[in-house]
Amino acid sequence: MSTTPQPATMVEVFDTTLRDGLQVEGVSATVDDKLRIAEQLDRLGVHFIEGGWPGANPKDVEFFARAAKELQLGTSTMVAFGSTRRPRGKVDDDATLRNLLDAQTSAVCIVAKSWDYHVTEALQTTLEEGVAMIADSVEFLNANGRMVMVDLEHFFDGYKRNPEFSLRTIEASVMKGATHLVLCDTNGGSLPHEVSAIVADVKRAVGDDAVIGIHCHDDTGCAVANSMAAVLAGGRHVQGTLNGLGERTGNCNLTTVIPNLQVKLGYQCLPEGRLERLTSVSHHVAEILNRPLNPQAPYVGSSAFAHKAGLHVSAIKRAKDAYEHVDPELVGNGTRFVVSEMAGRATIQLKAEELGLPMDGPAVNQVIDDLKRLEHEGYHFEAADASLELLMRYASGWVQEYFNVESMRVITDELPNGDFSTEATVKVWVGENRHVHTAEGNGPVNAIDTALRAALAEAYPQLDRVHLTDYKVRILDGATATGAVTRVLIDFTDGSRNWTTIGVSANIIEASWRALEEGLVYGLLHAAG
Amino acid sequence: MSTTPQPATMVEVFDTTLRDGLQVEGVSATVDDKLRIAEQLDRLGVHFIEGGWPGANPKDVEFFARAAKELQLGTSTMVAFGSTRRPRGKVDDDATLRNLLDAQTSAVCIVAKSWDYHVTEALQTTLEEGVAMIADSVEFLNANGRMVMVDLEHFFDGYKRNPEFSLRTIEASVMKGATHLVLCDTNGGSLPHEVSAIVADVKRAVGDDAVIGIHCHDDTGCAVANSMAAVLAGGRHVQGTLNGLGERTGNCNLTTVIPNLQVKLGYQCLPEGRLERLTSVSHHVAEILNRPLNPQAPYVGSSAFAHKAGLHVSAIKRAKDAYEHVDPELVGNGTRFVVSEMAGRATIQLKAEELGLPMDGPAVNQVIDDLKRLEHEGYHFEAADASLELLMRYASGWVQEYFNVESMRVITDELPNGDFSTEATVKVWVGENRHVHTAEGNGPVNAIDTALRAALAEAYPQLDRVHLTDYKVRILDGATATGAVTRVLIDFTDGSRNWTTIGVSANIIEASWRALEEGLVYGLLHAAG
Repeated sequence: MSTTPQPATMVEVFDTTLRDGLQVEGVSATVDDKLRIAEQLDRLGVHFIEGGWPGANPKDVEFFARAAKELQLGTSTMVAFGSTRRPRGKVDDDATLRNLLDAQTSAVCIVAKSWDYHVTEALQTTLEEGVAMIADSVEFLNANGRMVMVDLEHFFDGYKRNPEFSLRTIEASVMKGATHLVLCDTNGGSLPHEVSAIVADVKRAVGDDAVIGIHCHDDTGCAVANSMAAVLAGGRHVQGTLNGLGERTGNCNLTTVIPNLQVKLGYQCLPEGRLERLTSVSHHVAEILNRPLNPQAPYVGSSAFAHKAGLHVSAIKRAKDAYEHVDPELVGNGTRFVVSEMAGRATIQLKAEELGLPMDGPAVNQVIDDLKRLEHEGYHFEAADASLELLMRYASGWVQEYFNVESMRVITDELPNGDFSTEATVKVWVGENRHVHTAEGNGPVNAIDTALRAALAEAYPQLDRVHLTDYKVRILDGATATGAVTRVLIDFTDGSRNWTTIGVSANIIEASWRALEEGLVYGLLHAAG
Repeated sequence: MSTTPQPATMVEVFDTTLRDGLQVEGVSATVDDKLRIAEQLDRLGVHFIEGGWPGANPKDVEFFARAAKELQLGTSTMVAFGSTRRPRGKVDDDATLRNLLDAQTSAVCIVAKSWDYHVTEALQTTLEEGVAMIADSVEFLNANGRMVMVDLEHFFDGYKRNPEFSLRTIEASVMKGATHLVLCDTNGGSLPHEVSAIVADVKRAVGDDAVIGIHCHDDTGCAVANSMAAVLAGGRHVQGTLNGLGERTGNCNLTTVIPNLQVKLGYQCLPEGRLERLTSVSHHVAEILNRPLNPQAPYVGSSAFAHKAGLHVSAIKRAKDAYEHVDPELVGNGTRFVVSEMAGRATIQLKAEELGLPMDGPAVNQVIDDLKRLEHEGYHFEAADASLELLMRYASGWVQEYFNVESMRVITDELPNGDFSTEATVKVWVGENRHVHTAEGNGPVNAIDTALRAALAEAYPQLDRVHLTDYKVRILDGATATGAVTRVLIDFTDGSRNWTTIGVSANIIEASWRALEEGLVYGLLHAAG
């Protein structure tokens, strides 16, 4: 194709998961969640992380303050988002711009109206003032030492109706020192051939005076194709979100567009060696937000390289590129055969070495069998390192001798006054000694956790240092709702080490109990001293 | 755009939900399910319904037999799928071709290998025999009175490597009377600019001798864009599935590509007046297959036209086309205002109008106060339409008089043998009558749901139709783990209406119980008759 570029032309990746992505319905993230997602983005190696809109959201002010103190970004640059100054106002006393500077990021991104209709109707001001708002704001932020990117809102819709005004907003941005002009398909209604033509027009007007970026939404199912069309027409900066999170139909899915650009078109989007982290980062972020990843997601979904029908398996092995559009390992995913599942022996061996756990062939086979069976039941060990380690130890013949549970009971009551009360009783053997403890809790999991710890406290005072830091529940197979299987993940810490366990059962109490037990066993196994 | 066609050029829609779509992991359909889906497809008005592969699958033989007897298709033509004759065989005694004829459809679609590698390696035969297999098969089916479409498997990958062979397969098909040449991106790895160039080449070679079709998979997230690229390059037949069902990442999503082609590019895909059935057909088929529709699906998803941000709601009302890429009613969907803490009065008023609920000023203020307080506690009404409606009704003075819970208790036991048992007891008043019921469950939520329904069954037999379809749990503020607040969302259906409720509490049982109660109240409130 004549449009294929020379290898290694760079296309910047600008991630807006932490701002635009969190507009998705039904998701809310804490500041802690956002910090952990930022770490994942840096691990992946995106150029820019848009952290939020300080001022518009009090949580985002806290995020930038903590990000500056707590995050050690190795690759990515943190960006604060804001807007141009208000109509008929001054930049010096504009709260939005002040908040932007207070976020203390080296780069900022401001949204500017580039569709004349939105200037005259939504802002109720003149087109001249619309342009001045952009020019003044860019100049002010630039004078304060910031790299300034401009998100040109409704650019494509505006350009189709009044290209002259849209180009004036661009000219004003460039004149005042904006480094990036990001053309936004805010309503998401554009199609690739339109994006291609309009970006080419803009590229002709702008030349090399600024980087042209693209920001798409998926309302026509074309966010990824539109972003690629923009790059093929001269854009060198792509905005999007992990897993396509975002308002309405979502933003351009970075987990799709990055490998399309890098593997298929030869652009460089991520630093060397990072693309293979894509699947793991995608799953990790889905986990943090407790929002299941679509198994059909291109490149990173669990079905993306799944092959049915035994017939072709040997053929696929013989000539993968005749049956798979890319090598799944390039993005950290793997070929999966739906009939006969292959759990990589090499991975298990590597993990065993990592744990300093000698494993012979039969033990490895046992682990593979166990994994197959348990993953079929709904277990998912990617996120549950401690449960995987225990499973591997058991497969090599290890027996845990810390404690043995005789029985457990938990009762929840709604009293006639509407109050709830919960009480758990746990009976445990430690060696020859039987310990029986009852505890109340503000919920069943809290009650069983408290009762189990009380029962073990005398024998194992070191459990005092082990705390639960997070508890996640996912219902698998929504079809049968409360009759479906429940997957519980619990995160623990002892102050120096963090670990995660998993429990799966139709009964949420059983699933939680299994994960709790394993968490304490792991804590005892690795107790310092 | 120079590529925009004259209005009313027809593009045929060929639906393969019943064949390729059912390759999706985790879905299985009965013959009854397939017949019901075919009815929906006819209601929507697609040109062709590919019903299955008779012979390859015994269920599909039954499907075609029953379809011929039981279905009264008003618009669509049923198509049987098969393959070309086997290598070095004869058409007259070829089982696959015989089964195709036995399906008794007026049209058939056969898959043919158009990538030289697959002929020499997978079929282990010569390229000459590869072409002869196609020519003989088309000729035979044509001679038996069938309209013959040819699915050219791996066409794009093959064409990139050996265009001469790929074009020979096309020429053979056309010479023997194939009406349609369907170019398949079987591995799903192609990008729009490639599809565009290759379809244009084929169009130049074929002219008007046959219809050029396109069959895409979504492995690069571009199935819709690729299909449109093919149409813009001269294709006039699009294959895909409802809701993008299909192997790996799925097939081209017809619920996206149809409105793109018809509303945005002016082609005619469906008969007059049918496009507005798109959302309902999409949801109906998701229901039949028990596979929840992605709320973010373009055009038909429940979030596709959902607006947040209280600020803009009044602006949206004033000029919908400045904020929505198409009128949602064209596809049978609607604008939805998502209510959250940030919502202004205008959003609440709009929501009240949407519900047909008269609300005066004080009632609106009450709702805003309630939302603020509850969202601070961890409620999140965006996703819980039913709970929001009940809250708004309560704020306007409504009182629910269906039932009153006196008390509830749920006990979970781990027995010494490791088994778990759960039992719930619910005491409820319906008017003057007290109902006490105990039920076991495979978990506490299942047990309380079963017990509450049992207690209400006599008074409200209509609850029989109300089912839980999904149950979601999110732990808020991970820092305190099992001592943290739990948010439960439950989805319900009564077969025609779907709704969601929310419950929040430190106690997961209490949170689930609140959401369950509200779900049943809502079900009673909206029970048909």
